[in-house]
Amino acid sequence: MFQSATLPQKLDKATFAALEPDLRRDLLAAQLEIIEKKPVSTIVLVAGIDGAGKGAAIARLYEWMDPRHLLCNAYGEPGEEERLRPPFWRYWRDLPAKGQTAIVFGSWYQAPMRARIDGSLSVDGFERQMAAIVRFEQMLASEGVLLLKFWFALSRETQKKRLKALKARGATARHVLDEWTGVKNHDKARAVAEQVALHTSTAFAPWVVLPSEDAQYRDAALAQTVTAAMRKALDAPDAPPPAAPAVIGGVKRISAVDAIDLSPALAEDAYEAELTRWQGRLAALVDRKAFRDIALVCAFQGNDAAGKGGTIRRVTRALDPRFYKVHPIAAPSDEERARPYLWRFWRRMPRKGHVALFDRSWYERVLVERVEGFAREADWMRAYNEINAFEAELTDFGIVLCKFWLAVSADEQLARFKAREETDYKRHKLTDDDWRNRLKWDQYAVAAGDMVDRTSTAYAPWTLVSSQDKRHARIAVLKAICKRLEKAL
Amino acid sequence: MFQSATLPQKLDKATFAALEPDLRRDLLAAQLEIIEKKPVSTIVLVAGIDGAGKGAAIARLYEWMDPRHLLCNAYGEPGEEERLRPPFWRYWRDLPAKGQTAIVFGSWYQAPMRARIDGSLSVDGFERQMAAIVRFEQMLASEGVLLLKFWFALSRETQKKRLKALKARGATARHVLDEWTGVKNHDKARAVAEQVALHTSTAFAPWVVLPSEDAQYRDAALAQTVTAAMRKALDAPDAPPPAAPAVIGGVKRISAVDAIDLSPALAEDAYEAELTRWQGRLAALVDRKAFRDIALVCAFQGNDAAGKGGTIRRVTRALDPRFYKVHPIAAPSDEERARPYLWRFWRRMPRKGHVALFDRSWYERVLVERVEGFAREADWMRAYNEINAFEAELTDFGIVLCKFWLAVSADEQLARFKAREETDYKRHKLTDDDWRNRLKWDQYAVAAGDMVDRTSTAYAPWTLVSSQDKRHARIAVLKAICKRLEKAL
Repeated sequence: MFQSATLPQKLDKATFAALEPDLRRDLLAAQLEIIEKKPVSTIVLVAGIDGAGKGAAIARLYEWMDPRHLLCNAYGEPGEEERLRPPFWRYWRDLPAKGQTAIVFGSWYQAPMRARIDGSLSVDGFERQMAAIVRFEQMLASEGVLLLKFWFALSRETQKKRLKALKARGATARHVLDEWTGVKNHDKARAVAEQVALHTSTAFAPWVVLPSEDAQYRDAALAQTVTAAMRKALDAPDAPPPAAPAVIGGVKRISAVDAIDLSPALAEDAYEAELTRWQGRLAALVDRKAFRDIALVCAFQGNDAAGKGGTIRRVTRALDPRFYKVHPIAAPSDEERARPYLWRFWRRMPRKGHVALFDRSWYERVLVERVEGFAREADWMRAYNEINAFEAELTDFGIVLCKFWLAVSADEQLARFKAREETDYKRHKLTDDDWRNRLKWDQYAVAAGDMVDRTSTAYAPWTLVSSQDKRHARIAVLKAICKRLEKAL
Repeated sequence: MFQSATLPQKLDKATFAALEPDLRRDLLAAQLEIIEKKPVSTIVLVAGIDGAGKGAAIARLYEWMDPRHLLCNAYGEPGEEERLRPPFWRYWRDLPAKGQTAIVFGSWYQAPMRARIDGSLSVDGFERQMAAIVRFEQMLASEGVLLLKFWFALSRETQKKRLKALKARGATARHVLDEWTGVKNHDKARAVAEQVALHTSTAFAPWVVLPSEDAQYRDAALAQTVTAAMRKALDAPDAPPPAAPAVIGGVKRISAVDAIDLSPALAEDAYEAELTRWQGRLAALVDRKAFRDIALVCAFQGNDAAGKGGTIRRVTRALDPRFYKVHPIAAPSDEERARPYLWRFWRRMPRKGHVALFDRSWYERVLVERVEGFAREADWMRAYNEINAFEAELTDFGIVLCKFWLAVSADEQLARFKAREETDYKRHKLTDDDWRNRLKWDQYAVAAGDMVDRTSTAYAPWTLVSSQDKRHARIAVLKAICKRLEKAL
């Protein structure tokens, strides 16, 4: 969820000033049309790190929208009337009517997150509460409530600075409630937020992470997301609400994939030594007796021509052919098309003691199928959730799962394409599709960024690797696999 | 789930023989059309009480359908290949292709139910597994799998007899696997099955209970349900799969509501004495200090003219007006219509120490709104689940929830309607709607039966009361409230 959350997303003053009139006009127009046609009621759920400027961002919404149809519901510790009724009562009481928009601070997520952070709630108890929340939100979605859940994200450093400044200005009392997401709990809060997102970021009510390092970017992203969601509710009521905008006022959102440092490189000599070293280490690891109780699954994704195949070969060279299999994933077969999407990957799951390497993987649904329109939006939106659940089942069972994104720059890709054209025995590797995909470079980058954000979990994190220098990539991948295996064994 | 499951549903030989050709023809026609058009793959999930004749019923399906497109997957203890992979792997491996129908014995429900029955799985762990199953089944539904889940139900007595007969015939080995739902565990199995249904009977994959006391009824109901579901997948793919058929070969399914004994009556003298006694008891109960920590909510439903109002007045007479409220539920207001369905009931939830009596209730969605078509099928189908979750939230909080169905016969209703017409001060109580509803007596009976089956839970059971004699009904209701309160206090 949070891979790209604390990247330095920025909108400078001039850009923001130029953008503001349009943002306002579009947001207000969408709101007024919702009020007139009443297709939905809207809930803007506000959560996130203390000091991220939730209040300031909402104040901006108030400024830009028609406040007569806005409610702001802030919940703290339950009051007397609330304590005397079931916990969800107060949220039901304040549900906005169709046409209205309610902004909710201190939502139904607050109590379970807080209790999880301070340790008073067990994992099982927490998951039960998350399941109850999913049921509640599913009901809201079925009943025509447009639910937008925003997580205001901030790096620890910025948070520290901001809170210090706030304190200096004498702002204390109104922050007391939020202290559980304060600096002291920053890392814990982030880990719990990831768990929350994992269970409750559904196709009908996905979380949207708002990078809040820069106030202008934050406010523009918030307004644009609300506008887009209202617009969708008006024009395509059956589609899921949109994720965070990829472009704001001409400024592209920096994704975790965009932020990969492409500079690392390895000289030939050093490479050979490292290769021998890490291949030997990998061979020794899978040879251990304890490996028979686990299994290794690696998924390789990346830009076209990033060198997935070559990297996979460097991995397999360390392995006994009896115990590994490489699965190149292309278009599904008829048999596969006739069954649920993940079937083709389940059927390739290795036994314990074995290794499966996927050259492209189950992530194709949220990459090529999304960008090329092979899957409907509702289908690839639910895929994030299904994939997270799928990977949880694998890792719960003791499978070590490594996911690699191999990145090259657009220029480097072009150079490699040309080299392939010019080399006889490489020409077959270059297809018309490759050229076509290249034209959609930006869309693929957005899809890859969303993928990394939405499917990086504690149990199955993405490893983002620069493949600008292939030697660097190969060693980085081998190293990452060894480290994960060592931890598991 | 199981209120009507063990009622003596029967199809005699002659009726069944007359019915069989149509059942076969329709089932086969639906299957062949599914094979040809491949809109879905079908899973017939078979579960239930040992000795209910699951195998025999499935054998009949094989006889009636085209077996070339039928798979039968029976799962027991995982084999070696299965143990080496995550638990769900074997179910994924065997997913039927579009056009195919798979019959599944020993499904993903088996392990958690078994572990819950023998006590090796905690409630939290069980609920976690149920949540994983719901995710899995939601994925199946989204991917175009028609999932039909049958619970073969049998009374303890019949089960005992059947198993004895089976044993006498030397049938043992093939039943070993099912022993956890044997006679010894009958009540436990039923309780766990109720929990399973509560969590996993969703709008997209509802459980269908097959009363299996009579083999012919069982097989006909199975075939008819499969046919109807396939037909729906062909004609109305977005509608949820159908519930158990209400009429088979002209024979109406006996619902729990149909089975209410209407004979009890109370003489005037006895009534007065009982009334004083139970009203006094109720007054004393709500006066206890401990009552301030709980609350009482009663929902009254029943046939028109069954005497809900009069019964409610007999209850309120025992209560202090400062602490109770009667909520007559008619058509929703504009304010209510603009919000999710349950909002109008949440807003009427009493504080602790208070009493709320609902004259008609949140059940109207699955009664009048279902029968009159005010709610779409997908909406009233999900209402069962939402209501169960709603009532769980109330009772978890300490609210005592009593739900009454007041029943009169069709003849008695007619007599009361006529009496109302003839009595000046009662005439206002009779509307054209009442006459119209009466024409749909059978449909209302089916809806009421489904409601009782699908929303009778351990924490909020239905109390079915004959109101053929009003005096009997009033005392029965007062008594039931007192008993529930006594248990809670």
